[in-house]
Parts: sequence; structure tokens; C-alpha cells
Amino acid sequence: MAEKKTIEETDELTLQFDSNGLLPVIAQDADTGQVLMTAYMNKEALAQTIETGFATYFSRSRKKLWKKGEKSGHFQRVKQILVDCDQDCLLLKVSVDAGQCHAGYQSCFYRELDKTNPQKLNLIAKKTFNPEETYGK
Amino acid sequence: MAEKKTIEETDELTLQFDSNGLLPVIAQDADTGQVLMTAYMNKEALAQTIETGFATYFSRSRKKLWKKGEKSGHFQRVKQILVDCDQDCLLLKVSVDAGQCHAGYQSCFYRELDKTNPQKLNLIAKKTFNPEETYGK
Repeated sequence: MAEKKTIEETDELTLQFDSNGLLPVIAQDADTGQVLMTAYMNKEALAQTIETGFATYFSRSRKKLWKKGEKSGHFQRVKQILVDCDQDCLLLKVSVDAGQCHAGYQSCFYRELDKTNPQKLNLIAKKTFNPEETYGK
Repeated sequence: MAEKKTIEETDELTLQFDSNGLLPVIAQDADTGQVLMTAYMNKEALAQTIETGFATYFSRSRKKLWKKGEKSGHFQRVKQILVDCDQDCLLLKVSVDAGQCHAGYQSCFYRELDKTNPQKLNLIAKKTFNPEETYGK
């Protein structure tokens, strides 16, 4: 418990990366409060994010760093980085333009579970850009 | 790519649980937009959340379901459940009382990385309850 308490109460960054050296990260619009996406960071991605001021993640599928927006132009300017109690998750407050999700929406969370039939998804947003134009087919 | 597109564009819930049968879940205050915490759900936790209307997670350390608030009384009433593009993460919009983090704060994200020295954490919130009173020592 003593160790746990230290992580929760310390003013020293002591991130708890998982066995793959990764941490989940939430990106939230600093102005509107909208949750935009989640992704992962390793130590290097975080260092690059801090150094450049632009959110840089680690792609688990491509196994490399990616600066968010490097293809789409939809960058994330980092305003604030928060860490959670257990220091195993980060929350980035970011400034963004229109269109953060690679599917063409402002947020990756563009569908809700239907309240009467939760197997069904309701679209709750409109696309803000055409992903085929942005990324090619 | 065809399969990927289906997951992103389908109106059918087809959750992509990880190899442990888990999904990361973000809880966000439905009224204020504050990100409160992240946790994990398995299929059963989600079913129970939908059935009861109260957020129920899967504790990775205790390896069992936990209804958020079962010890502290700080429950999460679920207003909306959103799924992300890849269907591998959920966002819960919840109604809560004061004090959601087991460390005594309203949100688990009560520390920010200092802008000039990112190894240092700044406390940005005040406790809303005394965790020792709530959970015992």
C-alpha cells in the first residue's frame, strides 16, 4: 500500500507503462471538452509530444511513432498533460481543427449504443471531412 | 480494409475485446464534460451496466466485476454509451455526485505535468472526500 500511495500522492512523474512499454492516452478538446480519441504512447512518444508541443503516439499496428495529423493535417496542439491516480493513463487537453477521426468525424466517438436495443448503434455526428480525399483510397 | 470499414461504418455493435476479453472505458461527467476515470470492461460488465444503468467495470487486479461506488457510495448513473471508430474503446457519459476517484478527488486526473519541468507534477484539484474515512485505513 505504501508504494501505491506514493504513486497517487507524489509530485514526481513515475509512469507505469504496461508490459509492452505503453500507456493509454485520451485526447480531449481543450475548448469544448469533447473526448476526441484514445491512443497509446511509449516513453519516446511522450518525450516527443513534450518537446514539440504536438501529440505524438505509438501505433500498435504499425509499431512506430506517429505524429497525429502527419497524413491528414489534423494535428493536435497540446495545451496540458494530466496523469491519473495510478500513473498508468494520460489525458491530453488539445487544440484542434475540424476532423480528428480517420473515419472523417470530429471525434472517434460518433456512435452511441441504442437505449432500447444496445446491439444497434445510432450515428450521432456528421462527417467534418472526406477521409477518401484526405488519405486516398 | 473491407472488414475495417465495416467496423467503422456499421450500425451493429461488434466490440473488439482484447486478448484478455477486455476493453478500455472512459467515464466522462455528462454535465460538466470532465473526464473522471478510465477502467476496463469485459462482456459481462457491459451487460450489467446496460441492465442496471450503473457503471460496472472489471477489476484487473481483483479479477472480478465491480459496480463503481459499491464501497464508496459514489456510483455512476449511465446516461449514454458511445463506441469509437474501431469499436475497441467505450465512452460513458455519467451522472455523478462529488468524489469519483478513490484517492479522494472528483476526477482521477488531479495532477498535470509541469510545463517547464515535466518530471514534476502540479496538483490542480482539491479533495472532495476523505478516502480514509470512506474506505477505512
